[in-house]
Amino acid sequence: MDEFALIPNPNDEKLLQTLSGLDESGQPVIIKVPVERPLTLFLNGQEIVTMMTIGDYPEYLATGYLLNQNMLTLKDKITAIDVDEDLGVVVVRTDQKTNFEEKLKKKTITSGCAQGTVFGDMMERFESIHLNKEAILLTSWLKDLFLKITHQPSLYLEAGAIHGCVLCHEVSPLIYMEDVGRHNAIDKLAGYIYHQNLTTEDKILYTTGRLTSEMVIKTVQMQIPILISRSGFTAWGVELARKAGLTLIGRAKGSRFIALSGQERIKFSPSKF
Amino acid sequence: MDEFALIPNPNDEKLLQTLSGLDESGQPVIIKVPVERPLTLFLNGQEIVTMMTIGDYPEYLATGYLLNQNMLTLKDKITAIDVDEDLGVVVVRTDQKTNFEEKLKKKTITSGCAQGTVFGDMMERFESIHLNKEAILLTSWLKDLFLKITHQPSLYLEAGAIHGCVLCHEVSPLIYMEDVGRHNAIDKLAGYIYHQNLTTEDKILYTTGRLTSEMVIKTVQMQIPILISRSGFTAWGVELARKAGLTLIGRAKGSRFIALSGQERIKFSPSKF
Repeated sequence: MDEFALIPNPNDEKLLQTLSGLDESGQPVIIKVPVERPLTLFLNGQEIVTMMTIGDYPEYLATGYLLNQNMLTLKDKITAIDVDEDLGVVVVRTDQKTNFEEKLKKKTITSGCAQGTVFGDMMERFESIHLNKEAILLTSWLKDLFLKITHQPSLYLEAGAIHGCVLCHEVSPLIYMEDVGRHNAIDKLAGYIYHQNLTTEDKILYTTGRLTSEMVIKTVQMQIPILISRSGFTAWGVELARKAGLTLIGRAKGSRFIALSGQERIKFSPSKF
Repeated sequence: MDEFALIPNPNDEKLLQTLSGLDESGQPVIIKVPVERPLTLFLNGQEIVTMMTIGDYPEYLATGYLLNQNMLTLKDKITAIDVDEDLGVVVVRTDQKTNFEEKLKKKTITSGCAQGTVFGDMMERFESIHLNKEAILLTSWLKDLFLKITHQPSLYLEAGAIHGCVLCHEVSPLIYMEDVGRHNAIDKLAGYIYHQNLTTEDKILYTTGRLTSEMVIKTVQMQIPILISRSGFTAWGVELARKAGLTLIGRAKGSRFIALSGQERIKFSPSKF
């Protein structure tokens, strides 16, 4: 797969709005800010949730959300996805009927963005997943990888106030998704992976967001063995990563980082003098 | 009210966990990370939500959440708040029974952290609120204000990966709350304001989080006329701030910032040459 096979589109006027204001000296300024618009997700005619999203890739967001919430499994067959951008509605249809009324009553609101609603049975599935032990991370990849991601034109460079996540292979960024909530970004990525039928067990996930319990749960569910963030950790995120054997790297900037789980996959470069 | 009448407690071992890992050169490192633990909120015996929080000030978090979700109004009388830290449960009791079954079905998941669940009637109330037009912000206050906040010992300085919000009066930070989700921090602040019966119409709210629609809605509901963040804006956040006449300042660092709404409250210092 090519580097940056999928990238954000900072030129898509749907995603950014230009606003005028004042700077600290009272001078007029014009800045771009990301748009957030409601997208209501239906699964086979049942309303599941309304998400606030920048609105690109609604099909991937819908599919990824349902997969990451265990409302769909890889066994389910999606027969159609209908998007009505004007109404802000996306409908996912499967060959078998589904009903999540009970589940929806059992929502747990979590410390991540709201996308990360965790259901009881999510932990069950989480504990049954075995991540690829053969996957490796060369620390020598990281500096180039981060440089490529940082220099890629993005909504973040254009407007800030947005989260990104990037599916990477070795030193190559492949799929770069952005959204106002970091869980939208990772869910869009999960949807893309499902629809493109990508293998993930040799991949690395880079995120700008903090390494909370939910980010770890979603990464493990996506069978990605290595998760890297430029942000920090929460204690439960680390605990879950250690339980799942996920390689968890945070505070990653330039060639610096801290690894708190799955260190056996990391091949350290000989330190320079 | 004194400066920093309430501050985070980085020495509270309940809030931070010490973990060992490896740095980029494979050397062992020890870092502190914030804890996230579930807290299940009951209102008069009805389960409302389970929140992921660092766990300080559960009474304030519970009260502030219910107020910001319009599940309680200032007219409701809280008769008791029972906290069981071992079970991770907080029960808020009011003089009148409440029932939010229907509301809970109508959850909107938003782009902020999950705390920011928005109900239909929240917008109705939002539109009925009139913020104090007399409140002012001297740009000359900001540099000192930010310095005081930045240098205050905090969980952020100790462990990072946490959001903070600070209720300020002129150049004085008064109440400083932190949590893994920025909505927990602002809800704890709302709870404190309610229980201490503080006036807010002459105050400034500083947050580390992005200025999304929900942060704006909560600030307006708390009757705070000025909201400042070191982070950026979303388009809907700005639109709502303009609708409510909230002074909205983002990208605030040192003495620099951008104001996109309510500029009439800002008194600009004569620019230096």
